[in-house]
Amino acid sequence: MNKLLSKRSEFTSTSLTNLNKIADSLESKGQEVIRLNRGDPARYFPTPKYIIDAYIKALKKGKTYYSNPAGLNELRQAIANKYSKKRKGALNEKDVLITMGASEAIFMLNNCLINPNDKAILFAPYFPSFDTLLKLHGGIPILGHYHETNNWNLDLDELKEQLKKTNKQIKYLIMANPNNPTGTLLKKKELKEIVDFANEHKIFLVSDEVYDEIVYNNNNFTSLVEVAEGIPHMIINSASKVFDCTGLRVGFVVIPEQDTNSVALKEKMLDLAALRFSVNTPAQYAFLEGITNTKEHKKAIKIMTNTIENTSNYASKIINETKTMSVVPPNSTFYLFPKIDFKQTHFKNGCPYKTFFYCEC
Amino acid sequence: MNKLLSKRSEFTSTSLTNLNKIADSLESKGQEVIRLNRGDPARYFPTPKYIIDAYIKALKKGKTYYSNPAGLNELRQAIANKYSKKRKGALNEKDVLITMGASEAIFMLNNCLINPNDKAILFAPYFPSFDTLLKLHGGIPILGHYHETNNWNLDLDELKEQLKKTNKQIKYLIMANPNNPTGTLLKKKELKEIVDFANEHKIFLVSDEVYDEIVYNNNNFTSLVEVAEGIPHMIINSASKVFDCTGLRVGFVVIPEQDTNSVALKEKMLDLAALRFSVNTPAQYAFLEGITNTKEHKKAIKIMTNTIENTSNYASKIINETKTMSVVPPNSTFYLFPKIDFKQTHFKNGCPYKTFFYCEC
Repeated sequence: MNKLLSKRSEFTSTSLTNLNKIADSLESKGQEVIRLNRGDPARYFPTPKYIIDAYIKALKKGKTYYSNPAGLNELRQAIANKYSKKRKGALNEKDVLITMGASEAIFMLNNCLINPNDKAILFAPYFPSFDTLLKLHGGIPILGHYHETNNWNLDLDELKEQLKKTNKQIKYLIMANPNNPTGTLLKKKELKEIVDFANEHKIFLVSDEVYDEIVYNNNNFTSLVEVAEGIPHMIINSASKVFDCTGLRVGFVVIPEQDTNSVALKEKMLDLAALRFSVNTPAQYAFLEGITNTKEHKKAIKIMTNTIENTSNYASKIINETKTMSVVPPNSTFYLFPKIDFKQTHFKNGCPYKTFFYCEC
Repeated sequence: MNKLLSKRSEFTSTSLTNLNKIADSLESKGQEVIRLNRGDPARYFPTPKYIIDAYIKALKKGKTYYSNPAGLNELRQAIANKYSKKRKGALNEKDVLITMGASEAIFMLNNCLINPNDKAILFAPYFPSFDTLLKLHGGIPILGHYHETNNWNLDLDELKEQLKKTNKQIKYLIMANPNNPTGTLLKKKELKEIVDFANEHKIFLVSDEVYDEIVYNNNNFTSLVEVAEGIPHMIINSASKVFDCTGLRVGFVVIPEQDTNSVALKEKMLDLAALRFSVNTPAQYAFLEGITNTKEHKKAIKIMTNTIENTSNYASKIINETKTMSVVPPNSTFYLFPKIDFKQTHFKNGCPYKTFFYCEC
């Protein structure tokens, strides 16, 4: 370890970063690399024209100055309105913070809550940043699991058993719903179980819902907001995936409750936001159009979701017809998380790259 | 302190944030507030059309996906070329990292280097984030000073004396040149003194040069790059001020040397960058045009700097004609940092707001 560097900087690297480094190195040697790990719809579907038009309009109107650190008030209000429809108590713009993508929200969550050796619950396989950003702040993950043998569904009983052995306070529980990379879509009943569990153990609940509208095969999405009224919780979401504009870096959090913990967290996240002044201002106007022009959005999301449904189902079918691979066909996200029997491949000694797997699970 | 929150979250708030909260509160009560603390040129000068045009072109071409976490290669190369002209050894794109504004660069610097109780040198009055982001990471500031009685020039001798009493390693020394809020422009001779000082004490040098082209009254700017060859250092810069587009959130760092410390820091900052995937992609194309279209840039910066020169000199004159205020007329930035004799005002008991001052000095 270099003496100049901080101790925490040992934890900056994710399995995803390591994977990309291997890919970069192979490409620089002239090998062709297909990056199946990239969750970047805007590489495959053009960002809808009505969103681009709003972005251009904002630029032409000179919206190139710092906006409010918490985000444009109109955008915060539009998001509050959207989530108000999902619960009894109405929300207002003060319950919403615009972030530089969902990543910044996960970063802020850990920065505001995690002391060295504090614990948080993740469900494996998880989005790698959940684990890295927790550890970067000195935190310790406690793992629940999605089980492949049970169609990548969650086993909460196992987690409850494990928690009996832990007498320390758990700072938060974070889940991605729909989940990256398994494509698991949590049912209302399961979400209610998680809420009861969190309430019993006094755990702050966090739901990363960036794939909330990329749901198919006749399934429906339930937001944590719909079942957690009265319980401290936070929603993380983003324009990136559902509005097909990853490169714009606009995300948001909703913290609906007014209990002491929720209010304190809102205030601290806003302070952190002030330290980077503002999210890209014209991109926020683009997202404002995305979220308020429901007619255009419905058209765009339908085209994208239908395409993903067809591609995903077809790819699952092909994979399950091979001898070396199998996969649980997902009903949401654009990920497949197949199992590869390396003994049947020419990689006789297993996977040649230690970080080959997107998530260690 | 709320039990859910981390200990570090006690340090998220800057004097600037507190000042804005007071202003927001007064405005909500119907009082008119003139925010003299806002360093936002894009509120007063429209962002140059050639930059906006490049932004729109990138959007129309569908550049809305994640770009390389380190930034667009073309942009990194253009910045490397620009800084190569200022030194003997040529730089390449790997010496440059694109950040979400200069703020992210300052954040990353502290995240990668500062352990609890590590020390770093700041020169007061400083840009408030220098202090806040250091403390947020557990660091302790050691203060040098600009002296108003000496035209806001630095007193390095005082700092040297102070360092004799400190036997702990200093992780870095950060300066803003030109300085916010005093408008101090460091001369080549002073910069060389700082470099010698850093070399003697083995201190990593950081120069925040976001106002590098906003220099007037027949003065010239010297970058740290020009005098620090062979010494580990880092430049922080941004599109925000000089290219008049604060709301785009595009900044960068240059780490020119290849010593162990510089290489380790570059690698760790890149890892941190990967955790937020990418800076706004089309905005990077806009900045690429800004930095490579030197003909248009020269025209734009001349108009802006001339206006600031006239306004700043006129305001300094007016202030120095009053009985209650005095100011050292600056030769760079768009700030004035006047002294107010509160006893001569109707605020007989001093400043009514504890956080009235932009910087505590």
